[in-house]
Amino acid sequence: MDKIEILGMVAAVLTTAGYVPQVYKTWRDKSTKDISRSTYLILFLGVVLWFTYGLMINSLPVTLANAITGCLLFFMLVLKFKYK
Amino acid sequence: MDKIEILGMVAAVLTTAGYVPQVYKTWRDKSTKDISRSTYLILFLGVVLWFTYGLMINSLPVTLANAITGCLLFFMLVLKFKYK
Repeated sequence: MDKIEILGMVAAVLTTAGYVPQVYKTWRDKSTKDISRSTYLILFLGVVLWFTYGLMINSLPVTLANAITGCLLFFMLVLKFKYK
Repeated sequence: MDKIEILGMVAAVLTTAGYVPQVYKTWRDKSTKDISRSTYLILFLGVVLWFTYGLMINSLPVTLANAITGCLLFFMLVLKFKYK
């Protein structure tokens, strides 16, 4: 794996793992007043398309990263609907 | 442009534009209590790396989408620090 690929992998890990603190905070605080539902709906739809794109170009990093991100965004949407 | 490329472009537009409602909501409500600073810091760092990756592989869509997303995330961080 060359340096450019490693850079892309680190970027993918960060833009996936980045949602973990938000999910944890929202789950812990049970408060979603300041969270935009539209943002999470649009991001979730975008990530589903990225996942599909990853499958079509046979890219494991794109498919895997977006599968995990999709789960985190879906969990945020569940929390947003639960704690209005 | 084939169908797979169009799918990727639509995905990129959604995962970039998705942050606009959150930025607008936060700017309007001046409240960031429920927003995770860690999430936006990690996502911003990840997007900076994606931007660099886009430059290195000469991909205009990756570079452009992440430049715009980076600006939106940076603006969210400014709002988070301003409205604690």
